[in-house]
Amino acid sequence: MEARDLDAVLVIGPGQHNPAMVYLIGGAHLTQAILLKKRGEEAVLFHMPMERDEAALTGLKTSSLGKYRITDLIKEYKGDVLRAFVKRTKMMLEDMNLTEGRIALYGNYDAGASYGLFSALSDALPKLKIIGEVGDSMLLQVRATKDETEVARIRHMGGITTSVVGKVAEYIGTHTVRNEMLVKKDGQPLTVGDIKSRINLWLAELGAENPEETIFAIGSEAGVPHTTGSPELPLRLGQTIVFDIFPCEAGGGYYYDFTRTWSLGYATDESLRLYEDVYAVYKQIMDELEANVHCPAYQERTCELFEAQGHTTIRTNPQTQEGYVHSLGHGIGLNVHERPYFGTSATGADRTDPGTVFTIEPGLYYPERGMGVRIEDTVWVRPNGQIEILAEYPYDFVLPVKGK
Amino acid sequence: MEARDLDAVLVIGPGQHNPAMVYLIGGAHLTQAILLKKRGEEAVLFHMPMERDEAALTGLKTSSLGKYRITDLIKEYKGDVLRAFVKRTKMMLEDMNLTEGRIALYGNYDAGASYGLFSALSDALPKLKIIGEVGDSMLLQVRATKDETEVARIRHMGGITTSVVGKVAEYIGTHTVRNEMLVKKDGQPLTVGDIKSRINLWLAELGAENPEETIFAIGSEAGVPHTTGSPELPLRLGQTIVFDIFPCEAGGGYYYDFTRTWSLGYATDESLRLYEDVYAVYKQIMDELEANVHCPAYQERTCELFEAQGHTTIRTNPQTQEGYVHSLGHGIGLNVHERPYFGTSATGADRTDPGTVFTIEPGLYYPERGMGVRIEDTVWVRPNGQIEILAEYPYDFVLPVKGK
Repeated sequence: MEARDLDAVLVIGPGQHNPAMVYLIGGAHLTQAILLKKRGEEAVLFHMPMERDEAALTGLKTSSLGKYRITDLIKEYKGDVLRAFVKRTKMMLEDMNLTEGRIALYGNYDAGASYGLFSALSDALPKLKIIGEVGDSMLLQVRATKDETEVARIRHMGGITTSVVGKVAEYIGTHTVRNEMLVKKDGQPLTVGDIKSRINLWLAELGAENPEETIFAIGSEAGVPHTTGSPELPLRLGQTIVFDIFPCEAGGGYYYDFTRTWSLGYATDESLRLYEDVYAVYKQIMDELEANVHCPAYQERTCELFEAQGHTTIRTNPQTQEGYVHSLGHGIGLNVHERPYFGTSATGADRTDPGTVFTIEPGLYYPERGMGVRIEDTVWVRPNGQIEILAEYPYDFVLPVKGK
Repeated sequence: MEARDLDAVLVIGPGQHNPAMVYLIGGAHLTQAILLKKRGEEAVLFHMPMERDEAALTGLKTSSLGKYRITDLIKEYKGDVLRAFVKRTKMMLEDMNLTEGRIALYGNYDAGASYGLFSALSDALPKLKIIGEVGDSMLLQVRATKDETEVARIRHMGGITTSVVGKVAEYIGTHTVRNEMLVKKDGQPLTVGDIKSRINLWLAELGAENPEETIFAIGSEAGVPHTTGSPELPLRLGQTIVFDIFPCEAGGGYYYDFTRTWSLGYATDESLRLYEDVYAVYKQIMDELEANVHCPAYQERTCELFEAQGHTTIRTNPQTQEGYVHSLGHGIGLNVHERPYFGTSATGADRTDPGTVFTIEPGLYYPERGMGVRIEDTVWVRPNGQIEILAEYPYDFVLPVKGK
């Protein structure tokens, strides 16, 4: 806060699925809450009256929003909800002796309500400068570096993630093949939707959830990086399957992010060559990865390596939809994507500093040839600068199926 | 839009777990997207280049954000991310011929980024009036009334919810009793955490998730309405359990909201009286419930009924933490809490209009006596004005256990 000359931080929104709030209060089942932290002082968590026990569980100093009597304020302002909320926020800030200086604002909230409320508050408290950071926020920078507890939680999610991936591989292997497709006991084709239901179930069993779903994209769908996979598609042999899974702790905590690409039963020569190209670049980057380096340097290096193999990259053609089309990785924590960034959003602060946790995920995509390959692991830069993959898993491309 | 004199609507944020976006695009796996809808014109969905296929699945007119070359803009502005994003948004609005008039802003987004970006945009486009509605938003009002497809989806979630509640009751019944506690086969007490794991599992099996968790609060925890229940607590006989479950479709769609209060094995005279009081008020309100009534009238009526039974209510004492301490219900849809409101946030527009779907959930809480009772169903006001509970479930208070 000192570096950015901030006098206070204000975080709004729910107590879960709200990374800025979860980071500062540790997660709590609060429908809506307000956290105010003045520089050098203890944070205060304002909560709804009937959520007092949940608020108290955070161990923070708490204060009930009930005392600001929003109903009476709305009546006083003849139903003008905006004026009532501005007045309430002003009263809270006055109680905290925070009516001037610089205050940074964070938290998941309705965009319109944020703009409306804080524009009006800014008019009501002209000496208070509300800082709404876009992109390069202080909190995101602080959150880029993880402490041991955070790393342990991400590592635990890594264990859950690779365990579920193992279960999927095993489950696929129990099916028989008919007409180049996997079929279930009832003779119906095994589909992407069947796999995804199992994934959700296994994640729930292990205390995880996947609020952002899972990518299980086969064939031409594997050729577009963020296509999640149509549930009705059957699992055909010899097609690339991009399996990208990024669950978080149940209730909205720390994430893990992991990708393998599989081909069932056998691989075509063409897809095997593609896999080998991606795997070679993955290995090369992992070998070169070091602490204290500007992340975009590795994005440049990845482009260089793919270009040497003859692929188009977003460096040679920013509009390309074939070849290497995305960035090499991203930080991960309470958001599945956070700092440090490797691609277009990176600033000077995006570095492989000790304590950072991020993904390395090179990939190649050829939608018109019906294939795509991505390999992804989540790594941690240890305090001593060593790079560690937080959950190991084999890199086999061809997944054996019965009789193949 | 006409009634509010709006020229356009702008929705930002992810394609999932973002009610305003999901309502308008039908849900899509988009990391970040921008929807622009001009009055009387087709909406345009701006998406990240590699999410083009997911965007296309919405059936909307789409446009790639790639053409605005944010990387080049950030370079041009020497790393000033805010200026680059303001410029990009300005270019998009210019392409849509939307540089003046009134535009309403919605969507889950970082509060600080929303305030920062749209304050700066407002300065850059002085003829454009950005409307950030607090509380009484047009979109929330539109969303209060559900069409048949929406009701079918909420009803389907109701079926899943009551099916899981039934499974929980059955599961509890399979346990034996020792020292007034339920015990598992290994002799260890059955805990709230055990129940919650099962709930997550069964919800996942049925294609649902509970991003806001589940309340399973026993004894004194049942005495505080939003206390979710400590996982380590054993299930003791003769204590009130408030079981409030509010899952949504997997991926973040429509919610259902449902509460029953149970007492295992037997009920004390005191808790039985409390249950009977709440049930009587529940029945009375359900009998009186009609279409086209101002919702707060039912809140007043509920207070009147509880007061006649001798309980304190938030009407007689707005600060009370005993007796009837919350509002009677709330609309439900893509948010677990939305319009119409019955309590402090209600305006003149909060009415039991045909098409609305809302909860009715009277309750009484006595934390110091170690008990609380709430009964909740989700109802739909049919187009003909009839009130229908969307998922029926028995109102038994005492849940039998083995040998009791």
